[in-house]
Amino acid sequence: MSQSHPVYGRIDGPIVIIGFGSIGKGTLPLIQRHFDYDAEKLVVIDPNPDTHLFLSQHGIRHEQLAITRDNYRDVLNRLFPEGQGFCVNLSVDTSSLDLMKHCRELGVLYIDTVVEPWAGFYFDTENNAERTNYALRQKVRDEKAANPGGTTAVSCCGANPGMVSWFVKEALLTLARDTGREVDAPDNRDGWAALMQSLGVKGVHIAERDTQARRLPRPRGTFVNTWSVEGFISEGFQPAELGWGTHETWMPENAHSHDRGCRAGIWLERPGAITRVHTWCPTPGPQFGFLVTHNEAISISDYYTVGAADAPDFRPTCHYAYHPSDDAVLSLHEMFGSGRQQTTHEILDVDEIVEGIDELGVLLYGHEKNALWYGSRLSNAETRKLAPFQNATGLQVTSAVLAGMVWALDNPQAGIVETDEMDHARCLEVQRPYLGPVEAHYTDWTPLQDRWEHFPEDIDESDPWQFRNVLAT
Amino acid sequence: MSQSHPVYGRIDGPIVIIGFGSIGKGTLPLIQRHFDYDAEKLVVIDPNPDTHLFLSQHGIRHEQLAITRDNYRDVLNRLFPEGQGFCVNLSVDTSSLDLMKHCRELGVLYIDTVVEPWAGFYFDTENNAERTNYALRQKVRDEKAANPGGTTAVSCCGANPGMVSWFVKEALLTLARDTGREVDAPDNRDGWAALMQSLGVKGVHIAERDTQARRLPRPRGTFVNTWSVEGFISEGFQPAELGWGTHETWMPENAHSHDRGCRAGIWLERPGAITRVHTWCPTPGPQFGFLVTHNEAISISDYYTVGAADAPDFRPTCHYAYHPSDDAVLSLHEMFGSGRQQTTHEILDVDEIVEGIDELGVLLYGHEKNALWYGSRLSNAETRKLAPFQNATGLQVTSAVLAGMVWALDNPQAGIVETDEMDHARCLEVQRPYLGPVEAHYTDWTPLQDRWEHFPEDIDESDPWQFRNVLAT
Ligand SMILES: NC(=O)c1ccc[n+]([C@@H]2O[C@H](COP(=O)([O-])OP(=O)(O)OC[C@H]3O[C@@H](n4cnc5c(N)ncnc54)[C@H](O)[C@@H]3O)[C@@H](O)[C@H]2O)c1
Ligand SMILES: NC(=O)c1ccc[n+]([C@@H]2O[C@H](COP(=O)([O-])OP(=O)(O)OC[C@H]3O[C@@H](n4cnc5c(N)ncnc54)[C@H](O)[C@@H]3O)[C@@H](O)[C@H]2O)c1
Repeated sequence: MSQSHPVYGRIDGPIVIIGFGSIGKGTLPLIQRHFDYDAEKLVVIDPNPDTHLFLSQHGIRHEQLAITRDNYRDVLNRLFPEGQGFCVNLSVDTSSLDLMKHCRELGVLYIDTVVEPWAGFYFDTENNAERTNYALRQKVRDEKAANPGGTTAVSCCGANPGMVSWFVKEALLTLARDTGREVDAPDNRDGWAALMQSLGVKGVHIAERDTQARRLPRPRGTFVNTWSVEGFISEGFQPAELGWGTHETWMPENAHSHDRGCRAGIWLERPGAITRVHTWCPTPGPQFGFLVTHNEAISISDYYTVGAADAPDFRPTCHYAYHPSDDAVLSLHEMFGSGRQQTTHEILDVDEIVEGIDELGVLLYGHEKNALWYGSRLSNAETRKLAPFQNATGLQVTSAVLAGMVWALDNPQAGIVETDEMDHARCLEVQRPYLGPVEAHYTDWTPLQDRWEHFPEDIDESDPWQFRNVLAT
Repeated sequence: MSQSHPVYGRIDGPIVIIGFGSIGKGTLPLIQRHFDYDAEKLVVIDPNPDTHLFLSQHGIRHEQLAITRDNYRDVLNRLFPEGQGFCVNLSVDTSSLDLMKHCRELGVLYIDTVVEPWAGFYFDTENNAERTNYALRQKVRDEKAANPGGTTAVSCCGANPGMVSWFVKEALLTLARDTGREVDAPDNRDGWAALMQSLGVKGVHIAERDTQARRLPRPRGTFVNTWSVEGFISEGFQPAELGWGTHETWMPENAHSHDRGCRAGIWLERPGAITRVHTWCPTPGPQFGFLVTHNEAISISDYYTVGAADAPDFRPTCHYAYHPSDDAVLSLHEMFGSGRQQTTHEILDVDEIVEGIDELGVLLYGHEKNALWYGSRLSNAETRKLAPFQNATGLQVTSAVLAGMVWALDNPQAGIVETDEMDHARCLEVQRPYLGPVEAHYTDWTPLQDRWEHFPEDIDESDPWQFRNVLAT
């Protein structure tokens, strides 16, 4: 249809988009642009009546419906009568695992951007160990182990989790090149893990700074974010969580490890969104990030493990270090300060944002060049030119969904996969036109720099990249 | 000159305003309005060349000069040749104690809004105990003890320290009335302390919420505040500090007490502006405040002590619980996150502020009606009508300076005094026209309410108003 928008393949059967929030709305135009499919077979499922008008006006079939534990089988059976098609899950409050399993039973391709549980899980689960992303992810890994192969279901293929796993690989190749090693891109997990180990990488921050802002003071009592407020609050109140590397010599007192599964992570008895870490991004330089739990913190530490799960020779530390938009920082301050979740939620709209970028990358640290940030520095202004209905944060996610869908179409019998397990070069090739500047930045910053004067801190001066130094006091 | 602006008296001799920042600039029109004096004898001292234009255009004598340890005697001797007049110190980086002492030697009335040290003190002093406001205040108290009486010098007469000490008294009388006691206002310290004790007050938060905001996203690398950025950064990096009450059963591990002086306070090995407490104001309800050290935290705990300094029968806990403007919250987050002070400073101007109030009061807690907030809820919009050249924060400070000057004129031989020691009714009478709504609000909130679900916290469920519960984890 257009030379500038390559069509990556044909999707036979229905395309069902579950959830039409900020990400669903931004994914739709990319699907329309880049796939060949029967338009009348595309349907959007969302319980929110507000989506009705938009979808009607754009001639999109839709059903105003909440997917639940009770109805999901019937709904999927009805929408995918022929056992083919694509289920694109971009909702909150639906179980990724159950939807994925049922789609695979039906022979329907599946993708999501998070291992989401059924409604109620995040706040009704009493046991904190069960509220972790480790626990959520492990169930998907267990399902993969129990039922290997079969119809492809791509788990956690957004920006992060998702794209950042591809950035880790690109960053490793960049670092290898820049330190004079001649390496070909490995083609399996062992090869990648060995490469990271041989480069001396100790850990990875998913280092993000979102500077998008509008010209309106944040209204009191309103949680303002650049993507799902509900999603952010849920993960923000989960325990802080990270992949735990073999170089760590100290562990926080409130830390817990796991006694089954991949063993790659630990969690802290503290909400992630109030737990600060020292980190670095190109635009601000050193900054605080929040240690919000994310699937990729565990998956990356797991993927790059060398040796046995419970006694590894090498494993990197990995965690999110998120500086959300300033309005979201203020929203968190208000929420934790009042002890109450705001009931009014706002997602900054592409058209009201007057400045800013979402700078999202991976900071590989501890190696001979100290630290390398590799990522996307997409501005909202550029986003406006690239695709409709989304801000910069949205486009980093939706273009990863696009890439994951292309990969799934090309690899329809790959079973359950995480983004670490996919062809990162092909995925980034599809995604890159939507990422703005994708850049590598070295820095000599370490978390031992720029500490507060005058006050004692619990740090390890002998080893800059210990998590003890990264965790803010 | 005008019926609406009472003239409170005549100031003979020169009026020297030292420092013409946000507070100096706002104080000048109140002096012009409310005192009779010889206009050619008013002079402003400030080293900042930017003040030149404004002062020239308004026909005000001024000298572009920094007061230093070396020149202060000569400058004061020269400016006050006749041993009378008023020195109004509204600067940073000048020693309040030295200026006050010299003015008293000259027979010149003196007022300031903070016990300020000479330049360099805040960041060059190595010993944290010496960097406390306790230490700064104690030197002034020692001077008062060594040289009682004599020419009046009013110490720390801004909004806080300052006006809030008058609010504490007004709040005590309100609480007494509302709990059915018939009390006359005490006329000495023992009487006030006994009243607070008899009312069962356990402590006082100086509870402030500043909601003033402009329509411009905070620029990165800029510290934005509603009053002196330099002053806020200096006090923000001092150790967190509070008056320590007799009802406290627990002390933070990083706390230190003092072994000389009034013994009313403790300090923590942690910068105040990154130390959060749970507090309450009428507009937001429960919120985080920062435990920034302030003179009044010590002076109020000291003033209301019953019994011996080192073994009191009663003493209230008292500390600042400051939620500055949202732009300042973001500035702090950036500063502590980067470990570097921003080099660009901005004070929100009355004319660019589009919304908000400075809600500044005292929260008296632990008594039979649980907690009472008493304070000023002055909006920027109302400020604009009341007096020129300042925002709401400024006017709360400058009107306290005015009240303190009036009191000093009426009591010219009172020696060194703090605002706790002044006639609060008279001072508030002078100040009230500038404070917007001054209101009393009872609340049943305690720091045990609205804790995070799911996470263990180090709290004392048996006694809501323990500092252990107030300090955020
Ligand atoms: N991996 C990543 O990088 C990444 C980034 C952003 C968002 N996400 C995830 O993507 C999802 C969507 O994010 P968003 O920003 O669009 O969220 P959003 O809050 O804007 O929208 C969520 C949508 O889901 C719908 N929904 C709620 N319950 C539903 C149900 N039972 N069945 C069907 N739909 C339901 C809501 O009505 C809403 O329209 C979230 O789970 C979020 O965590 C992942
Ligand atoms: N008690 C209170 O409620 C309260 C409230 C606000 C401010 N304050 C205090 O009032 C003072 C002034 O506050 P502001 O907001 O106007 O500050 P500001 O930073 O706006 O202005 C300070 C002024 O002092 C001048 N200055 C610097 N060094 C000087 C020197 N050596 N000699 C003379 N002048 C010098 C600067 O040039 C500047 O104009 C500060 O000490 C602040 O802490 C007290």
